Amino acid sequence: MLNGYTVPLTPEGKSSATPAPPWHYSSECIAIEYWADPAAVAALLPPGMSPDVESAGRAFFWFLDWQFTGSNDEHTDPARYQYREAFVLVEARLDDRPVNFCPYIFVDNDAAIARGWIQGYPKKLGSIFQTRSFSAQSPAACPLAPGSRFGASVAAHGERMATARIQLEEKVDAATVFSRATTIRRYFPTLTAGRQDKPAVNELTLSKMDNLTFSDFWAGSAELTIPEVRGEDMHALKPLKVGRGYRFGMAYSVTDLPILKNYVA
Amino acid sequence: MLNGYTVPLTPEGKSSATPAPPWHYSSECIAIEYWADPAAVAALLPPGMSPDVESAGRAFFWFLDWQFTGSNDEHTDPARYQYREAFVLVEARLDDRPVNFCPYIFVDNDAAIARGWIQGYPKKLGSIFQTRSFSAQSPAACPLAPGSRFGASVAAHGERMATARIQLEEKVDAATVFSRATTIRRYFPTLTAGRQDKPAVNELTLSKMDNLTFSDFWAGSAELTIPEVRGEDMHALKPLKVGRGYRFGMAYSVTDLPILKNYVA
Amino acid sequence: MLNGYTVPLTPEGKSSATPAPPWHYSSECIAIEYWADPAAVAALLPPGMSPDVESAGRAFFWFLDWQFTGSNDEHTDPARYQYREAFVLVEARLDDRPVNFCPYIFVDNDAAIARGWIQGYPKKLGSIFQTRSFSAQSPAACPLAPGSRFGASVAAHGERMATARIQLEEKVDAATVFSRATTIRRYFPTLTAGRQDKPAVNELTLSKMDNLTFSDFWAGSAELTIPEVRGEDMHALKPLKVGRGYRFGMAYSVTDLPILKNYVA
Amino acid sequence: MLNGYTVPLTPEGKSSATPAPPWHYSSECIAIEYWADPAAVAALLPPGMSPDVESAGRAFFWFLDWQFTGSNDEHTDPARYQYREAFVLVEARLDDRPVNFCPYIFVDNDAAIARGWIQGYPKKLGSIFQTRSFSAQSPAACPLAPGSRFGASVAAHGERMATARIQLEEKVDAATVFSRATTIRRYFPTLTAGRQDKPAVNELTLSKMDNLTFSDFWAGSAELTIPEVRGEDMHALKPLKVGRGYRFGMAYSVTDLPILKNYVA
Repeated sequence: MLNGYTVPLTPEGKSSATPAPPWHYSSECIAIEYWADPAAVAALLPPGMSPDVESAGRAFFWFLDWQFTGSNDEHTDPARYQYREAFVLVEARLDDRPVNFCPYIFVDNDAAIARGWIQGYPKKLGSIFQTRSFSAQSPAACPLAPGSRFGASVAAHGERMATARIQLEEKVDAATVFSRATTIRRYFPTLTAGRQDKPAVNELTLSKMDNLTFSDFWAGSAELTIPEVRGEDMHALKPLKVGRGYRFGMAYSVTDLPILKNYVA
Repeated sequence: MLNGYTVPLTPEGKSSATPAPPWHYSSECIAIEYWADPAAVAALLPPGMSPDVESAGRAFFWFLDWQFTGSNDEHTDPARYQYREAFVLVEARLDDRPVNFCPYIFVDNDAAIARGWIQGYPKKLGSIFQTRSFSAQSPAACPLAPGSRFGASVAAHGERMATARIQLEEKVDAATVFSRATTIRRYFPTLTAGRQDKPAVNELTLSKMDNLTFSDFWAGSAELTIPEVRGEDMHALKPLKVGRGYRFGMAYSVTDLPILKNYVA
Repeated sequence: MLNGYTVPLTPEGKSSATPAPPWHYSSECIAIEYWADPAAVAALLPPGMSPDVESAGRAFFWFLDWQFTGSNDEHTDPARYQYREAFVLVEARLDDRPVNFCPYIFVDNDAAIARGWIQGYPKKLGSIFQTRSFSAQSPAACPLAPGSRFGASVAAHGERMATARIQLEEKVDAATVFSRATTIRRYFPTLTAGRQDKPAVNELTLSKMDNLTFSDFWAGSAELTIPEVRGEDMHALKPLKVGRGYRFGMAYSVTDLPILKNYVA
Repeated sequence: MLNGYTVPLTPEGKSSATPAPPWHYSSECIAIEYWADPAAVAALLPPGMSPDVESAGRAFFWFLDWQFTGSNDEHTDPARYQYREAFVLVEARLDDRPVNFCPYIFVDNDAAIARGWIQGYPKKLGSIFQTRSFSAQSPAACPLAPGSRFGASVAAHGERMATARIQLEEKVDAATVFSRATTIRRYFPTLTAGRQDKPAVNELTLSKMDNLTFSDFWAGSAELTIPEVRGEDMHALKPLKVGRGYRFGMAYSVTDLPILKNYVA
């Protein structure tokens, strides 16, 4: 009997790239509101989605320090399961419903890549950092207080993909900032000759977040740069205008993946 | 129009985790012949494969320094496309045909993970090193000559998964060492609630290698250890007996993926 | 005019491996009390230090997630200055004064290596992880509360050097746990032929910590392993008995380095 | 008895960040001839060195894949001792003698950082890659032949510091390209309060290379970029004009370090 939610499948099932759901997450997040070229946002949307004209190119660039656990205390094995992430969410419409879509995402851990691809997050490897807030007071502690300054960055293959800085001003209600569901594209290519343009899996999915919780939600001023990098396309979403920056905790669990559209059928 | 062989799909198609086939590879390889517990080998085989009784647990542990290119000089972007790999091949039978099967494999690059999953190689991230042979003579050069000693290792998540050493004795003919085709399991899980035990893709595939070439093929004595690591299963394939060690160049191209069995249908 | 506290020295002084003092630090820490072979501890002490007989081999193994800043908001550049660390402190006597001595330490950042060598911390590169506590509640959050379980590990060159786990039980007063000053050996070798056994700098120094502060200090049960690794000596300090585990915040600043002994003079 | 050429000093001496000399090296190298702003070169020279007016800002940017060994088969432990490097050499005069000086250098290994600081190479951590030449023929092999194209890059802290490409044209004699000795600045800061501007070690040294050997020396066309990076100064040496590119093997041993000037005395 072979076991495991993903390959490698083994008798014990311990080598699986990620354990089976439920997947539980808690994080510290820095998110920057900004506006990209609306045409560049529209050009990234999958079939059936349309630009959100009212958004006018609105997007959020996120940086996250994540802790993950499954059902076996995986959070006590941080070398294997703790990770850092950066992604963009662009605003769009799906059948008139205002949603987000995730066109780019980077993580520094292979279990996170596996879970991401299974959901539809188009994860690539990156090196991600964000300023943290520590409880022992010091000029290095960066407390959650007005005036504290946080930085964040993501690099891939030795190229800086994005850099952000925020300065805290005030606590705000998370519900006034985030209200859209996030859609992603689950996609698994075919390699058999003659069919390489017919992916085996090609679906629009919903990133379903059970028990979504925010904590310590602060807002402030923000800076964001997304430089042009040879061999990458993300700079097409570079900021034309930058809005507020947010710093907060977030937690949720994943147990399901609603399929919104199946592009293969 | 969205382009790219894999996600992320973009108008330009440059951000794709890997370019489309053809995929061309050249490598330096260290491979260790050894015998594992035949029951442990049998326990890892997918449905329809059976142990090769004559092999009696015979396996090879490989370490590879790879250079990759697609059709756009990707080999001149080594930060994105050069990588290192380690894997095990166990000997088995498929419908009475002697073949290899790959139960474990590690790489240090995300484009390589993407190509591997698409083929059926169960790749996870690792840190892999092998002694190289340099042309400028020195006690550090390790020439291809009798008596030269090479080391190799693979680690994952800060745990040493395998360590090998070989000492060159003589040049041999590659055809006397390797003659089996390699099978792999192409597998993409389902996350939708109620169907998480029904993978979307679950196939036995053939790792088809066009223009397979070996060069500078040396044989010698070998050592190999595969220690027990908490949270991993590979040590079940630890060596009970170690045979010869080999050091050689290898090249091939990938343009196709024959599907040998479809476990979903 | 060349500027910089360390090399590289440049006109602008920005490339220096670390900025000049003052150096400010804040961290989250996991520390495991344990007892090693007293003879192994004694064998690591520099000249002029003696075993603390009452300690009977008592030591602490620490894991730290650090944030650093100098005088220019370096904490907002976490890709360059945030880092993780693991070290051992053994108890000893210096002129009858009970102190700690640091024989082994690993970090994942070059600015931290530079500062460490300048002080006398014998830093090597490692990959260090510890479970974190997040504010957004979830099975992954690991709150500071009785029953929460934390893990930590350090690897170097693809070998696991130490692994620890603790389970929180109660808040305690830091002063009841830590009271000794820490000594280190500042050492810079000579490479000129004929004098390679006469280091240019060879001093016993005091790790002076200004404004040392602890926060959120919890104690609980602990596990610790320090496996034998080929090419390393740290396993000589493996635990014979493990005491309590601690999890806390710590902050201090560095502005000075008292020289306790000069072994060159 | 404590042993080790560097810290950590231990009874067995195996944990030392690097073994004692002799140090033996063999490498594959890509080097780009270029001209920087002569004033920017002059501004980086240590006391007693002067610009080489005839050089007019001439410099070389190098990328190296290194294999190291000491006296104990260290080359068979590549996870600990194999490494990659990138550096700049600028041309200058020392007492009317034409020499090189190394103002910037990056490596991906801590044993290499230790040896570098002991010699005077101002090493920081980086991520370095270069296209390799493989013996098994394939579009990915990049043979040593006219028309072959190689790329190389160095990143530090997630910022691309330099990118190069060369295309081979012809074999040339190494002696027509390289003839200058290389000087470096050996420097170890003081941290004791009141003396932080008085380094403990501050010397101009000669990078003495025993048995220097070149192999397979090719020349061709070249491209080089050194972008501006926040927090680093190297872009002051950006190319105003790019000359030829070279690709070759190089080996030497280190057993001594001549001190050319002592700035402390």
